Amino acid sequence: MTSINLSLDRIRSITMLALTRNGFSDKQARAVADVVTRAEADGCQSHGLYRVPGYVAAVRSGRADGAAEPRVNMRAPGVIYVDGDRGFAPAAFEAARTALISAARQNGIAALACGNTHHFSALWADLEPLIAADLVAWCYVVGQCAVAPHGGVRRLLGTNPVAFGWPRPEGGAFIFDFATSAAARGEVELRNQAGERLPEGWAIDSEGNPTVHAGSALGGALLPFGGHKGSALSMMVELIAGPLIGERTSGQVARLDISDGGPPPGGELFVVIDPGMFGVDAREAGEGFFAEALSQPGVRLPSQRRYETRKRSEAEGVEVSSALLQKIEMLGHDA
Amino acid sequence: MTSINLSLDRIRSITMLALTRNGFSDKQARAVADVVTRAEADGCQSHGLYRVPGYVAAVRSGRADGAAEPRVNMRAPGVIYVDGDRGFAPAAFEAARTALISAARQNGIAALACGNTHHFSALWADLEPLIAADLVAWCYVVGQCAVAPHGGVRRLLGTNPVAFGWPRPEGGAFIFDFATSAAARGEVELRNQAGERLPEGWAIDSEGNPTVHAGSALGGALLPFGGHKGSALSMMVELIAGPLIGERTSGQVARLDISDGGPPPGGELFVVIDPGMFGVDAREAGEGFFAEALSQPGVRLPSQRRYETRKRSEAEGVEVSSALLQKIEMLGHDA
Repeated sequence: MTSINLSLDRIRSITMLALTRNGFSDKQARAVADVVTRAEADGCQSHGLYRVPGYVAAVRSGRADGAAEPRVNMRAPGVIYVDGDRGFAPAAFEAARTALISAARQNGIAALACGNTHHFSALWADLEPLIAADLVAWCYVVGQCAVAPHGGVRRLLGTNPVAFGWPRPEGGAFIFDFATSAAARGEVELRNQAGERLPEGWAIDSEGNPTVHAGSALGGALLPFGGHKGSALSMMVELIAGPLIGERTSGQVARLDISDGGPPPGGELFVVIDPGMFGVDAREAGEGFFAEALSQPGVRLPSQRRYETRKRSEAEGVEVSSALLQKIEMLGHDA
Repeated sequence: MTSINLSLDRIRSITMLALTRNGFSDKQARAVADVVTRAEADGCQSHGLYRVPGYVAAVRSGRADGAAEPRVNMRAPGVIYVDGDRGFAPAAFEAARTALISAARQNGIAALACGNTHHFSALWADLEPLIAADLVAWCYVVGQCAVAPHGGVRRLLGTNPVAFGWPRPEGGAFIFDFATSAAARGEVELRNQAGERLPEGWAIDSEGNPTVHAGSALGGALLPFGGHKGSALSMMVELIAGPLIGERTSGQVARLDISDGGPPPGGELFVVIDPGMFGVDAREAGEGFFAEALSQPGVRLPSQRRYETRKRSEAEGVEVSSALLQKIEMLGHDA
């Protein structure tokens, strides 16, 4: 597979072109292109250019509105709701971000619920500006329904990612962002194509029996990470980024039978705390703990690899497959 | 081992006697006895009578103050801090509970930090009154330092439990409450006594190598549940129930070399959301999801077994080992 080196500016501009030529307003396109570019910079291809055709497909099918105008609504001094107007999650979050930061500063803690949006989640991207404002933050998204609950025999739960961030003085925030499934569905697809077996504990087949065959897993369900504990966490995400904020569970979304390849509809919940309320400078307060952790050989903090990749990408650009580049450029000429 | 059947009232009264005869004020004793009694009722012996000698030991050693007067302090409209005055966590939480519920109702979301307390954590016990008030709540506690981070070779993290609760119309709330370690230290001790091997993935020895020998594990470290994901969650707990609220990490507590068998000092953080702010009756809104989950054979909701045990205990009392009962009754005569 041939690849070509692209600068981050180039990645951003071809994404903007592909979106704006296909019914996206400047506002929606800029927010999506920002996430796509930052994902490529950080080596998270699964949230990068690879997703652009899906964003376009969701607008072409009429399911999502590329020119949506998110509406921000204060529900209480500490609670904000943004109605995404059938647009994409990055634009909805951007519309509410300043209000969220200011509510957290005034009340000490604030929540933001994003509804009526479509989501290809890269939660760390949303957390970074909050952490840069010296806040401590969580983010939860209801993902695509592909996971059986612990002890169960069929799909009930989304891949339901959870993320948390804590500020640091330099070298990048402490941020983790992971699916509550044992593995990503894309990973199972890759192993299926390669004819490889799965590790035990990743999946069950359509009869609900444990399987290490990738093909059987794709017809069955993934399992949560960490047994009953990960399963409970995933249930929590269904509740708090679903019914709590008036949004659907992943099972309800699955029954809508969306198959245009675009981001599914889904809720997102943020919780943000201002450490200043405890008289703490969080940017310094965690450093003793982090130093202790890093003094052990073999221990890495989450996101460290992402920050190293970002540095390299900013200096040297990013390798993108020629086929993918061609696909995106075609979208930019399509209209 | 002989055992004797005790009513819940009897469990409460022998606990009260053991505590008040050993330097506990009525307020501190009532709060601790309430958790002990409810833990026995729910079949959670590890937070029940078994812990009473430890509570007493912490006061006898002078480390904890059995007559502490917790002070509740509003730090911001949505943030409450309770200084436990070197007393026990149950009394600190009790002192701040009403303020927490009312801050959540007024701001839509609120946080409560408990500091300067000693904790034998049973987080579900603290969550239940919040969920009964139709709120959705999280709780995090820094536990005893016994766990190596993922990829690491020695202890860094506490067993660091996390808990979450969501209201239901009947049959008991959806509440999970679990340690972020792969297993409880007590479980490893039991297997060591029985000469049994540990499952893989529970522990490392003092050299940092994986071990299935319980004795080597006790000299080494437990592992987090769920690999790098559980490890990241545990790090989060260290940060938010430690430095965020001006409290120690579990490693810092371990270096204090406390060995009186009592509850360690440790912070506790609550986050509470009022679903009413989203126009949602959480008590009903989760039922469709729960029904779907329970339609799968083999799926249980967390805490269901606890609620069944509670019903039985209320009707029939609880079996308590005669040796333990004698120990507690001795404490009641000791003074």
